Amino acid sequence: MAEDSLTSEDFRLLEVALKAKEKAYVIWGFKVGAAVLAEDGKIYEGCNVESRISGLGVCAERCAIDHAILHGNRRILKVALVIEDDNVFDAMPCGVCRQYIYDFSDGKALIITAKTKNGEIVLESIKVKHISELLPSPFSSKIKQ
Amino acid sequence: MAEDSLTSEDFRLLEVALKAKEKAYVIWGFKVGAAVLAEDGKIYEGCNVESRISGLGVCAERCAIDHAILHGNRRILKVALVIEDDNVFDAMPCGVCRQYIYDFSDGKALIITAKTKNGEIVLESIKVKHISELLPSPFSSKIKQ
Amino acid sequence: MAEDSLTSEDFRLLEVALKAKEKAYVIWGFKVGAAVLAEDGKIYEGCNVESRISGLGVCAERCAIDHAILHGNRRILKVALVIEDDNVFDAMPCGVCRQYIYDFSDGKALIITAKTKNGEIVLESIKVKHISELLPSPFSSKIKQ
Amino acid sequence: MAEDSLTSEDFRLLEVALKAKEKAYVIWGFKVGAAVLAEDGKIYEGCNVESRISGLGVCAERCAIDHAILHGNRRILKVALVIEDDNVFDAMPCGVCRQYIYDFSDGKALIITAKTKNGEIVLESIKVKHISELLPSPFSSKIKQ
Repeated sequence: MAEDSLTSEDFRLLEVALKAKEKAYVIWGFKVGAAVLAEDGKIYEGCNVESRISGLGVCAERCAIDHAILHGNRRILKVALVIEDDNVFDAMPCGVCRQYIYDFSDGKALIITAKTKNGEIVLESIKVKHISELLPSPFSSKIKQ
Repeated sequence: MAEDSLTSEDFRLLEVALKAKEKAYVIWGFKVGAAVLAEDGKIYEGCNVESRISGLGVCAERCAIDHAILHGNRRILKVALVIEDDNVFDAMPCGVCRQYIYDFSDGKALIITAKTKNGEIVLESIKVKHISELLPSPFSSKIKQ
Repeated sequence: MAEDSLTSEDFRLLEVALKAKEKAYVIWGFKVGAAVLAEDGKIYEGCNVESRISGLGVCAERCAIDHAILHGNRRILKVALVIEDDNVFDAMPCGVCRQYIYDFSDGKALIITAKTKNGEIVLESIKVKHISELLPSPFSSKIKQ
Repeated sequence: MAEDSLTSEDFRLLEVALKAKEKAYVIWGFKVGAAVLAEDGKIYEGCNVESRISGLGVCAERCAIDHAILHGNRRILKVALVIEDDNVFDAMPCGVCRQYIYDFSDGKALIITAKTKNGEIVLESIKVKHISELLPSPFSSKIKQ
């Protein structure tokens, strides 16, 4: 239980993610909300967008990162992620998003996750991880274009 | 040459797309900017975000649509797209984005494209198309979840 | 109704696609089968593979093209596609697959589509299109790496 | 250095991956080869297929898994991956492929990676990992459709 060590900024990130979750467009899955703290010190939110076409659509974390990049950022520092308790055993980013978070944080982002119930964050579900814990032994290209 | 029939709103969309282009994150390709007019009457911009990982990254048009959805929209009315003249023979959305535009406009979006030179829109390059022209005989599922 | 003009090779492609459809891995959608005739004169089949993760998974046509490439091909000549009648109004490739077909056929592939009923191809549903009809005014990069 | 504990089957997987690498279609990246041992006891190879379109294309591991599914498999047991030494510091699957491997192995696949030099596997570069090590604390949905 990591809530004690959370900063007020971390809670703010979770709250922004919670709000963004409401905007998610889902067809067969469930709503997910995310928020990233970017290098410009601002928070950018994201939600998942599902598609019937395999390979289309985006997860909330990638949506939030694209959002930060769109505002001129090239690097994110923190990612918050919230998912409804009914839908997951564990509120964790998928491997696709882990790679994206890794790439846009030089492998250094802090990830704060929480489950929600009745529209509120479940405090005891909050977890804090480093992306290096969630994507160990990363793919590392020598090609730097 | 379609510029005569363009509304001031259409020009505004192209200008927003032009500005968004500067934010694009490119590795091996080139910068693309997009802007969508959403059902809420507001304009949402997008840029491309490239990735070294096959299947990751997003085109400018999809980025702009995700951006509109993130603000509560479920439908877009128009899409503007700008690409530097040096990079393309024709500034047209790819098939992936055509599907996404189709899905989020019930097949009705207007698409305004232009090439740019020295940071400005090339007026004589402007083209206006309907998504139904660019994605004829669309995939149409009977499954409406 | 295009069945009169179909060659025996075209029917063979549809049959291979029909068989491949059985292998499709679906979660929330429906099974699709595809087959491509590659430049080596051989037929490569594909099926859709769905994923719960937005952006993962593949359509049958892209699966079949990857399959052809994996056997040393760089170009495909024809694509067959079959979908169960209950699931679609029209059995047509999505925009994502149209782009992929376009890229791997220099914009020249012939596309043969059919609906199926009770495990058999519905002859009167067969349609033949050129990819240039299905992806008009294509995105065309000047960058040839 | 894990080569001592490798079975002859593991070496066979690396060899099949090595051969598949030659078929890779690359534009701006580098060739990667993969092979999976599927539940039917057979080996299915895969290569990467790049695309200029963001979001299109596939990594070698996902290509190999699609290949196994296309032959009726629903589960893979092992994945081998080979990348040229000049191109990577570490020959490891990306996060996107880790998720796909996880999903199609119930989180249990063994992953064998190697670098290559002058067309041959570098024995001392071979590593063996479990997917659970490479994707710890996985995303785990309660939704089982």
